[in-house]
Amino acid sequence: MEYQFSDRVKSLKPSAIREILKNSSAPGLIPLSAGNPAPDAFPYEAIRKVSASLLEDTPIEALQYGVTEGYAPLREHLLSYMKRKHNVGKEDDGILITSGAQQVMDLLTKTLLNEGDTVLCESPSFIGSLNTFRSYRARLVGIPMEEDGIDTAALEKALASEPNIKYLYTIPNFQNPSGVTMSLEKRKKVYELCRDHGVLILEDNPYGDLRFAGEDLPSIKSFDAEGVVMYAGSFSKVVSPGMRVGYAIGPQEVIQKMVVCKQGEDVHSNMWAQIVCHRFMTQFDYEAHLAGLRGIYRRKSGVLLAAMEEHFKPLVTWNKFEGGLFAWCTLPGDVDMLGFVKKAMERKACVVPGTAFLTDEAGPCRSFRINFSTPTDEQLQEGVKILGQVAREIAAK
Amino acid sequence: MEYQFSDRVKSLKPSAIREILKNSSAPGLIPLSAGNPAPDAFPYEAIRKVSASLLEDTPIEALQYGVTEGYAPLREHLLSYMKRKHNVGKEDDGILITSGAQQVMDLLTKTLLNEGDTVLCESPSFIGSLNTFRSYRARLVGIPMEEDGIDTAALEKALASEPNIKYLYTIPNFQNPSGVTMSLEKRKKVYELCRDHGVLILEDNPYGDLRFAGEDLPSIKSFDAEGVVMYAGSFSKVVSPGMRVGYAIGPQEVIQKMVVCKQGEDVHSNMWAQIVCHRFMTQFDYEAHLAGLRGIYRRKSGVLLAAMEEHFKPLVTWNKFEGGLFAWCTLPGDVDMLGFVKKAMERKACVVPGTAFLTDEAGPCRSFRINFSTPTDEQLQEGVKILGQVAREIAAK
Repeated sequence: MEYQFSDRVKSLKPSAIREILKNSSAPGLIPLSAGNPAPDAFPYEAIRKVSASLLEDTPIEALQYGVTEGYAPLREHLLSYMKRKHNVGKEDDGILITSGAQQVMDLLTKTLLNEGDTVLCESPSFIGSLNTFRSYRARLVGIPMEEDGIDTAALEKALASEPNIKYLYTIPNFQNPSGVTMSLEKRKKVYELCRDHGVLILEDNPYGDLRFAGEDLPSIKSFDAEGVVMYAGSFSKVVSPGMRVGYAIGPQEVIQKMVVCKQGEDVHSNMWAQIVCHRFMTQFDYEAHLAGLRGIYRRKSGVLLAAMEEHFKPLVTWNKFEGGLFAWCTLPGDVDMLGFVKKAMERKACVVPGTAFLTDEAGPCRSFRINFSTPTDEQLQEGVKILGQVAREIAAK
Repeated sequence: MEYQFSDRVKSLKPSAIREILKNSSAPGLIPLSAGNPAPDAFPYEAIRKVSASLLEDTPIEALQYGVTEGYAPLREHLLSYMKRKHNVGKEDDGILITSGAQQVMDLLTKTLLNEGDTVLCESPSFIGSLNTFRSYRARLVGIPMEEDGIDTAALEKALASEPNIKYLYTIPNFQNPSGVTMSLEKRKKVYELCRDHGVLILEDNPYGDLRFAGEDLPSIKSFDAEGVVMYAGSFSKVVSPGMRVGYAIGPQEVIQKMVVCKQGEDVHSNMWAQIVCHRFMTQFDYEAHLAGLRGIYRRKSGVLLAAMEEHFKPLVTWNKFEGGLFAWCTLPGDVDMLGFVKKAMERKACVVPGTAFLTDEAGPCRSFRINFSTPTDEQLQEGVKILGQVAREIAAK
């Protein structure tokens, strides 16, 4: 039989990262391309305990249908925790538990976008989200990143000139892939610009708790007096990505529409995982756990930085990063980046080409992304050594 | 701030069933409206055991990111099990694990439908699926149900005359809500008609294992030599709905597109639940478990049937049902069905009005749906007694 696919699907390609990820599990490859949390970052023992106890004392709740909005005790706890700790969530905001934060991107897009409407995003930005926006046939307009975050002059220009803008997508903390953190001044400016133009902000903050240097900055959502910001949070990097638990905090009117869309997608998120997250947050020392994670990633990022100092300088440069899981590295002007990535892959060092993160994958880019959470220390050292060698070989030609 | 919603969302309403479900947990209400498995149908002990063992012996697999296609051992086991037991799945078919079978409906629609394309469905049909199709702005065309399944003459006419038909949605076993099972003859006819018109069949089979009377019939998928059928299976009614694990078996070319769409929705399904399902199927006596479920529902349906015999006859009639979780009851011609449901609700007996299951909710309908898996025996008896009283009171006016 011949199959007739929808227009939206005809133009979609599988995520380059996830395709590379598949190959990167081949034996012998050094996985600098993934975005997986470090295996020792999972709170195994605690999860075993809460899982055993919840299946013992509330099995029906864990196994039966739940409401689409999410497990009520988790919703209530997250609202009060995020308000108390981060000033996220105002009085008339709602919360929706999602199947990973990726579903926040999906549901907000489904809720707001008609085909051809515009989404503003940082350039580069997280490919998974860009692909979600593309699946709704969004028109992606990239705003350049600077050292202190999105170029607000370019943002202002885009807000004034682009048609049918539905939201700005931003990752203010340790942005994936650039590693950049948006300055306080720019956070305020971004909020004001979007508010003044009546454009929602989708603030994606999967890495916020993984700061291992510098000082925490307030989220854009914390300035939100007018219902301008939809905040996306996630347990993927701080508890477990395999659980697929994320959440959206934002204007109740928008959340309610997202709930209706979620009903049609997966009815509700896995109940066991929601209860595990709730009990882990409330029955264990969550802040100590986060401090432990920061320690793990501080150490691992140190291994990467030392290796880059040794093997990259002065040819390959990198953005400063104070948290998260990634380093964004840039080759000199005369080096063919895609050729570099391919050659590094042949030598078993697997990184993601920077073009994967552009709104136009055919655009110019001399950068690549290194993940330092997945590989072991030895893999990091060996991988960066290979990358440095390959860069020098290509540059010497 | 003023929010601009997408056209698809402007026209969406929350599922009437799920809205009623919310109210039906109010204290004192008799929940004949839900579709929850019976609490004693959950294999608690087995799930406790497999959960404890998998978190002990393969915690990284359970907590780390997985591939979008699903947990490989579960995919392989399901393919061989479904082939062996039900002749479902041909050589070049693929399988995708989804976050509940609802996501199969979502992903297939996303993969095939442009706005305004036609979906043929049984009338009445499962409201959750209809709402999913609506969320992609499908044009729903209902084909009447007869005692032995869909009206194939009407189906033939629709296939020949309706524009841009992308698939036929059918629930051949103990259909929700009508309880009707499609005859073998009609299954073959439906397959041939759709094949000849180049229209996919979405065969949804959540209740197939819950037959408590009569003989099993082959699925439509078992006739599939030409890649016409996408089969949707689910663990919701046989293991646990709170886990949200379903699957699609169908043409590899279509499955691959659905995988790309799933990447953008939730990356992959909860890993713990996928491993639990795999271990439960392979380490326990799965067939004995299914036989136990059939025993539970045979008994509960008997309680309902006895109560209906006593309190409904001759005023309220019902469709014969040989499995599943629902009875479809019909009021006499002069009774206002919505008024009946409202009045029954005031007397604490909560059922779903039949109009909720129509492609046009404003269409004529004198039926309502009773669920017999959620209520206790006493609630079933008391609820049916109230419904009978209310029907007689209204009919007497």
